[in-house]
Amino acid sequence: MPVIPVNQLTQISTTAFQKAGVPTEDARLITDLLIKANLAGHDSHGVIRIPSYISGVRNNSIRPHPKIQTCDETPTSARMDGDGGFGQVVLTKGVEIALEKCNQTPISLVTVMNYSHCGQLGSYARMISEQDRVGIVLLGKQKGAVVPWGGRTGRLYQNTLAIAVPSNKPFPVVLDMATSVAPFGKILMKRARNEPCPDGWLIDAEGNPTTDPHVDFSKGEAGFLPLGGLTAGGQKGSGLTFMLGILATTLSGVGASGEGTLIISINPDYFTPIEAFKAEVDGFIDYLHATPSAEGFEEVLVPGERSHRETQRQLKEGIFVEEETWQRIQELGTESL
Amino acid sequence: MPVIPVNQLTQISTTAFQKAGVPTEDARLITDLLIKANLAGHDSHGVIRIPSYISGVRNNSIRPHPKIQTCDETPTSARMDGDGGFGQVVLTKGVEIALEKCNQTPISLVTVMNYSHCGQLGSYARMISEQDRVGIVLLGKQKGAVVPWGGRTGRLYQNTLAIAVPSNKPFPVVLDMATSVAPFGKILMKRARNEPCPDGWLIDAEGNPTTDPHVDFSKGEAGFLPLGGLTAGGQKGSGLTFMLGILATTLSGVGASGEGTLIISINPDYFTPIEAFKAEVDGFIDYLHATPSAEGFEEVLVPGERSHRETQRQLKEGIFVEEETWQRIQELGTESL
Repeated sequence: MPVIPVNQLTQISTTAFQKAGVPTEDARLITDLLIKANLAGHDSHGVIRIPSYISGVRNNSIRPHPKIQTCDETPTSARMDGDGGFGQVVLTKGVEIALEKCNQTPISLVTVMNYSHCGQLGSYARMISEQDRVGIVLLGKQKGAVVPWGGRTGRLYQNTLAIAVPSNKPFPVVLDMATSVAPFGKILMKRARNEPCPDGWLIDAEGNPTTDPHVDFSKGEAGFLPLGGLTAGGQKGSGLTFMLGILATTLSGVGASGEGTLIISINPDYFTPIEAFKAEVDGFIDYLHATPSAEGFEEVLVPGERSHRETQRQLKEGIFVEEETWQRIQELGTESL
Repeated sequence: MPVIPVNQLTQISTTAFQKAGVPTEDARLITDLLIKANLAGHDSHGVIRIPSYISGVRNNSIRPHPKIQTCDETPTSARMDGDGGFGQVVLTKGVEIALEKCNQTPISLVTVMNYSHCGQLGSYARMISEQDRVGIVLLGKQKGAVVPWGGRTGRLYQNTLAIAVPSNKPFPVVLDMATSVAPFGKILMKRARNEPCPDGWLIDAEGNPTTDPHVDFSKGEAGFLPLGGLTAGGQKGSGLTFMLGILATTLSGVGASGEGTLIISINPDYFTPIEAFKAEVDGFIDYLHATPSAEGFEEVLVPGERSHRETQRQLKEGIFVEEETWQRIQELGTESL
């Protein structure tokens, strides 16, 4: 099975997007963010998406030259309409605006609507923390396949929260979590591999626990459980999912059937000198690292650390890409239109 | 066992604080917030605290006449030092400042340090949503008895997140959650009643699951599990706990061993008309209410709804207060100093 060096994968993927009519700079941005997901070990958000992204351009569901609009702007906020552009392009623009405002104000909020799949949400929080700001990014919808507490069918969306903070550590300190026990991507991977899901991820159309990844979420029956599941605080996971769904959809203006993102940037310098902030974070990480590990674990890691190690490994060894995906990307990168 | 009408409990509790030297207005505020917790069914954060609060005043660990300082102020932010005052008094002041700023800016952030126990965090988020703003309040420490993912001893604090949004519904829409499976107060209640905790709340000093509420958290051994526990996404609960702990302590300036609170107020009017915002929230609630219920549940509720029903019931029927607590409050409210 193919293991592709990062450079080669970057080059051919960028070319594939360019051939589909995506501007060079955007083609590179989208490629880089997809490859970052692969590097971090989150293959479901990586280059496997390229064929469907390019189909999206071809069938006009993604606009390669969007007219991104910023409205209702204040010194601390903006509301963005991505005009159906790539999620990576639109959200990166949103991050830039949030960061720019956050130079002059301790906290800024940019809300975003009307964009395509954006990949790993943590990437955008990291763009903020890399500029010595605290990044909080929240993506949500009102409707999806997550079972609310006390219910027996999927209703809520697997709303996702990413938080990143600056530190002096050699890895990014970033949390990137869907508010369901398992992210939808993992269920799709189990489905693709025809493997059962672990207990506690899913319920079937009768509301009973199941491990079958092939249950059909599409009719509003069956569903996956919120963080905490049935026995470990699921009422909180459900409540959190509900609240994040409200915030993401109302403030971005997408309404009940759309997806919205909120980007919050906080400038620590308004509260404490940035070096003191980072030293605090470093100390907290050291304290957590010193936790005696549980059986089956070698050590306690902080959010972002495992992905960073995986990234370092794959940067050296190359990225594993499924045969079919690699074939398809090569075709898209070489075929004449 | 005594069931006390709200008026009577309010009067005698207020008097108890006044006799301890707390200014009348503050005595009433503290009392009202404690009683709200009882009304909502969260007795561990209610009037049971009055004797220890008053002891705090007497032994000078709580200052009844604090000089609350606001520093590093900008049009969108402030950092507050509560000078050791009552949590209720200091955080209410923080909310007032966040709200005032949020009239002129879409988002404001007030960080708070140096205050005593503040009761239910959701109360402060509600004060914000009652003014047609979105309230996000976060309380945290770096060190506590919550077991990080992969660890076998308590390390993290049960950091708490409260989010409230305005709506037209007759109940407050408010999430108030500690980031552990069970809040510490519930473990204390099990301890007091000598009842076993449910599976999945606790581990013992050897890192094994236990149901014994009497395990000793004080030595950094034993601990309670983060939201998601061992099988339902605990790595997310652990990561969320860690991140909230960083934000609360760094931006408030309390450092590694203190407790800090962040108060964020968002003015929806900068993004969407408030009536449209509320209509969206109402619609989302209706959609969730229509979820078919699971076995053992009569209906699906949204965050804040159950507490509201309990409040309505106890407002009519009176508040149940343990014999010993009621005796002690009566003494404190009547004895001469």
